[in-house]
Amino acid sequence: MKTVVVRNIKRADSGLVKRLGVLGVATVHEAYSRGGLMKPYLRPVWQGGEAAGTAVTVLTHPGDNWMIHVAVEQCKEGDILVVGCSADNTDGMFGDLLATSLMARGVKALVIDAGVRDAKSLREMGFPVWSRAISAKGTVKASLGAVNVPVVCAGINVTPGDAIIADDDGVVVVKRGDAADVVTRGEKRHADEEGKRKRLASGELGLDMYGMREPLKQAGLTYVDEPPED
Amino acid sequence: MKTVVVRNIKRADSGLVKRLGVLGVATVHEAYSRGGLMKPYLRPVWQGGEAAGTAVTVLTHPGDNWMIHVAVEQCKEGDILVVGCSADNTDGMFGDLLATSLMARGVKALVIDAGVRDAKSLREMGFPVWSRAISAKGTVKASLGAVNVPVVCAGINVTPGDAIIADDDGVVVVKRGDAADVVTRGEKRHADEEGKRKRLASGELGLDMYGMREPLKQAGLTYVDEPPED
Amino acid sequence: MKTVVVRNIKRADSGLVKRLGVLGVATVHEAYSRGGLMKPYLRPVWQGGEAAGTAVTVLTHPGDNWMIHVAVEQCKEGDILVVGCSADNTDGMFGDLLATSLMARGVKALVIDAGVRDAKSLREMGFPVWSRAISAKGTVKASLGAVNVPVVCAGINVTPGDAIIADDDGVVVVKRGDAADVVTRGEKRHADEEGKRKRLASGELGLDMYGMREPLKQAGLTYVDEPPED
Amino acid sequence: MKTVVVRNIKRADSGLVKRLGVLGVATVHEAYSRGGLMKPYLRPVWQGGEAAGTAVTVLTHPGDNWMIHVAVEQCKEGDILVVGCSADNTDGMFGDLLATSLMARGVKALVIDAGVRDAKSLREMGFPVWSRAISAKGTVKASLGAVNVPVVCAGINVTPGDAIIADDDGVVVVKRGDAADVVTRGEKRHADEEGKRKRLASGELGLDMYGMREPLKQAGLTYVDEPPED
Amino acid sequence: MKTVVVRNIKRADSGLVKRLGVLGVATVHEAYSRGGLMKPYLRPVWQGGEAAGTAVTVLTHPGDNWMIHVAVEQCKEGDILVVGCSADNTDGMFGDLLATSLMARGVKALVIDAGVRDAKSLREMGFPVWSRAISAKGTVKASLGAVNVPVVCAGINVTPGDAIIADDDGVVVVKRGDAADVVTRGEKRHADEEGKRKRLASGELGLDMYGMREPLKQAGLTYVDEPPED
Amino acid sequence: MKTVVVRNIKRADSGLVKRLGVLGVATVHEAYSRGGLMKPYLRPVWQGGEAAGTAVTVLTHPGDNWMIHVAVEQCKEGDILVVGCSADNTDGMFGDLLATSLMARGVKALVIDAGVRDAKSLREMGFPVWSRAISAKGTVKASLGAVNVPVVCAGINVTPGDAIIADDDGVVVVKRGDAADVVTRGEKRHADEEGKRKRLASGELGLDMYGMREPLKQAGLTYVDEPPED
Repeated sequence: MKTVVVRNIKRADSGLVKRLGVLGVATVHEAYSRGGLMKPYLRPVWQGGEAAGTAVTVLTHPGDNWMIHVAVEQCKEGDILVVGCSADNTDGMFGDLLATSLMARGVKALVIDAGVRDAKSLREMGFPVWSRAISAKGTVKASLGAVNVPVVCAGINVTPGDAIIADDDGVVVVKRGDAADVVTRGEKRHADEEGKRKRLASGELGLDMYGMREPLKQAGLTYVDEPPED
Repeated sequence: MKTVVVRNIKRADSGLVKRLGVLGVATVHEAYSRGGLMKPYLRPVWQGGEAAGTAVTVLTHPGDNWMIHVAVEQCKEGDILVVGCSADNTDGMFGDLLATSLMARGVKALVIDAGVRDAKSLREMGFPVWSRAISAKGTVKASLGAVNVPVVCAGINVTPGDAIIADDDGVVVVKRGDAADVVTRGEKRHADEEGKRKRLASGELGLDMYGMREPLKQAGLTYVDEPPED
Repeated sequence: MKTVVVRNIKRADSGLVKRLGVLGVATVHEAYSRGGLMKPYLRPVWQGGEAAGTAVTVLTHPGDNWMIHVAVEQCKEGDILVVGCSADNTDGMFGDLLATSLMARGVKALVIDAGVRDAKSLREMGFPVWSRAISAKGTVKASLGAVNVPVVCAGINVTPGDAIIADDDGVVVVKRGDAADVVTRGEKRHADEEGKRKRLASGELGLDMYGMREPLKQAGLTYVDEPPED
Repeated sequence: MKTVVVRNIKRADSGLVKRLGVLGVATVHEAYSRGGLMKPYLRPVWQGGEAAGTAVTVLTHPGDNWMIHVAVEQCKEGDILVVGCSADNTDGMFGDLLATSLMARGVKALVIDAGVRDAKSLREMGFPVWSRAISAKGTVKASLGAVNVPVVCAGINVTPGDAIIADDDGVVVVKRGDAADVVTRGEKRHADEEGKRKRLASGELGLDMYGMREPLKQAGLTYVDEPPED
Repeated sequence: MKTVVVRNIKRADSGLVKRLGVLGVATVHEAYSRGGLMKPYLRPVWQGGEAAGTAVTVLTHPGDNWMIHVAVEQCKEGDILVVGCSADNTDGMFGDLLATSLMARGVKALVIDAGVRDAKSLREMGFPVWSRAISAKGTVKASLGAVNVPVVCAGINVTPGDAIIADDDGVVVVKRGDAADVVTRGEKRHADEEGKRKRLASGELGLDMYGMREPLKQAGLTYVDEPPED
Repeated sequence: MKTVVVRNIKRADSGLVKRLGVLGVATVHEAYSRGGLMKPYLRPVWQGGEAAGTAVTVLTHPGDNWMIHVAVEQCKEGDILVVGCSADNTDGMFGDLLATSLMARGVKALVIDAGVRDAKSLREMGFPVWSRAISAKGTVKASLGAVNVPVVCAGINVTPGDAIIADDDGVVVVKRGDAADVVTRGEKRHADEEGKRKRLASGELGLDMYGMREPLKQAGLTYVDEPPED
């Protein structure tokens, strides 16, 4: 593990990132061949927040938030700070002062595989955070980690500059080089869904709309009028 | 495990189900000799939702929501869809399109021992869901399961047609044949509680109201003025 | 384990407790040398509640809330009821009737290392509760425990009369004898933070404000312009 | 929930149960259309134990083992005691005295969705137990439950008299009426596996033996010599 | 939290501790009114180890084992080192070098509410350890904690000098002042159990031996020959 | 997510891998700046196994082991198969037939972020496996994943060809390009430890051997003879 800060990273195109954000996490994840989704233990600190941005990454050690302070300086307008931790940990590594600093730099959100605190202030400030825990537990500044190296966060490998989309459904990561392709496929998917929603709302069955009856029969599904004998 | 869809089920009486819904989960569970309660890892996707209905059951495999699509057709006005899964799984098996379809059929709610997605849309649509996780994780349509067979959901066996009551306190299942008896006992309990609430609000102690002082003494409880020596 | 109720306890000074409440959990925990914080699995039943009070303690057995009924009588204006359990348990040991009784006595909140029920009523009554679960699961009244003896709650030892501060960030316990000292240090910390918040909001970096650049260099942190070779 | 003890139950045929035991849990579960498997948090208290028998069921409340004492009398040679609990609980509900009593009656094993104690003695006595925890935590005898009613144990519904097979891979339940069919399919599967094992040991690939190459190609799998560009 | 090392502690009588060790964890816990038992997530690193000793306590921070090194010097023949941690953590705070050092001083075992490493060496050295995890994760030496102050370990408050008994069933703590009383009650209990074991092995039912039939009837238990209608 | 099989990968040098295996997981992790360690929920299926090899990687979906069958063909003498899964899952994706096939090709071990079955056979065959669960739960062969692409396994990113070291302490991953450097540092560390072990066994204190007394004093540690007033 190299204890290094990388200054220059290549960021995903901001126009593409914005369009991914409009699509939302579920659609992007599907359009990405069901890839890139962080594990569902990562939850929003406050409900209803949404964010799309480019990843500045941090690797920390449990109980130590020194590298987050270091990372702030590397953030730019439109970034999302993504924090991985070298072991499972729920300590409150981030609070309202760090959020104030990030907002001053135009950072859109925090995604952290550890705990945060000042939950009420974060909600009142409107700064969206996805974390594995809320905890007031304090941290030290003793161990070096790294900034802008690839990190694993909630089970997904994040490269600096990747597109990050987050909402009430979780957090999805799209590799920088894949963003354009995912936008194309996601927007097509999204358009299709609008039509489907109307048909379903009118009472049409998904069984018919998706043409599932024949494959179900092929797979051996049987319909009976009464429960089979036990 | 039979891969079958049962078309005709006997549903709990809708008048009784409605009265169970008015009582709420905690009272119904107590009136049911402390039975029927699903495990508390099942949580409402949005706060404040309440539902009472009759169970249409689905058995799925992890990462596969094919049977939920099949089950929609078997639902009627006043039903609640109850989904069990053959292994622990948090994938997002259900989203706003399926919710649209269920609402078009008059279904009251979803109870699922797996994950759901489109959390924000579900909240905005006012469709109540109790699940073990929120996750955008996509699913396949590859494995047959069953519809309207007995399933285990969050630790409780659910027979198609059972009464399902759900609110912020969790989800409780009342066997079809027990519904009348539980309504009677629950409404009596509920009436008693109103009187008790007033007495407690006026400052009367539960110790006196419930006559606990003598049994506590019998069991050996001692009152002392100062802490005992360590 | 002694099955006893202690009537007279020494409570932390109410003026100090109030000032701790103004500081909030995160600041108090830091001012207390990062001590006293309950584990983060303890969560508020409803968001935004805040409480500060003196501990009346209860030791219960799993699935048994008899001692909570006993404890009500020992509570006074300004207390917080703190419930430890002799084994991991999520049963709903506390509901709106007990809350009514506690509010009638001026109790500020409940902190319980087990489950509670009537979540919606508790929210509507405005009675704040921190618990490890929400569950309608009913309990018996069969086992003696103790009231106003030292208990462990969510990993922290609580002595009767200790100051308890709780908000969205969790629950912190300050020993009665330490309250004055923690108030002094916390208020100083709080004043410092206001100034820092303004400087950070104006764009100043924490790296500079906290003087971290030199220690980071000493520890061996390297800045590079491009990612190191893999 | 009825507080009742059912005396007469129909047990799965002992010859079939024995043959299921020879097949082992993994084969039986596969032959049963991937059904009947208890959740994997249930683990053997000691490694290498194996058991096959017919279920005598018990429903208990957390922290209360009264009904297990009641159930002993209903057990016969060749039975396995299966204990469900009305809420998640890890208390030590069963120890060497109860095991002595069960062994005196010819009971083959215990399967319990709660904790056990006297782990060392159970190992030395050679009495196999599958449980969710090992804990010395003591229990009371205060709440009625039921014996020989359907119970949910580790996520599976168990009817009295069902066949229970348990080994290092977990515990599987076969409905009494399905035992003959599962034996037939399992023994065929078992015979097939022996041949496959020899072919694989000789170096033949599963890809060829199972004829997977064509379906993989159809599904779109691509082989490349070098990693694709990121 | 005071960062202090206390040199002189009052230890439980070594003769009493030895007798508690002979009784084992389950018996001691019962004789102690079902008190003092650490939570069951604490497990032995190797099976079959047993230990009884007097507590030297350590309070650490997550990811930091500095205080364990400090504590070694305070240990004497017959002690057990008990480590609490200020937040949930599974890092490997202890390995074979520290074990070598403790064995050189006559320490009997380690009980730690965090992780350990060198699991194979600890087993080969015969040094018994109860921990919440096995993990090679390394730690720093940056934060002060305390030695020989009261700590919470796996949910139980431990005062320096308390008696600690550990075996395959878990870990139980007996307050120094309670040791004599618990020995008396435990040895009586142990003698009673021997007689009971013989009677149960001969086929006598616990229902009769414990005189449970009448209380069960009083509580309302019903026996039926056939399952009740659903 | 690309559904691809990469045929040619660059493997870490086999001589270096062997030397890393001799050092063991804890030493390698420390020599690697406390990096590369998989999360401790990954446990050996049988105790005492040890393995060192080069990674062939597999990405699977929950409940689907198709890609493992595909991966076998890509394995060579000295490899370790490393399986990541796109969502948390404990299904038994691997058993004795696949193990037979891997052993026929000279594969050293399996590391899988999901479940395995046939635990007893794997132990008897002496094929070492590290997994997150043991479960007989069967899987389908329906979803494409990938072979020999970078995968996340138990929180660590694994590139095909990386060195994998596993023993009772867990699993550590060393990037191919870092292997030589880690061997050098690890062997130095190992040599140092032998000398330290002897000194500690003779009773020398770590406090003196490591020169900790002065830094502890600087950090503010105080020694007192008696416990401070509460």
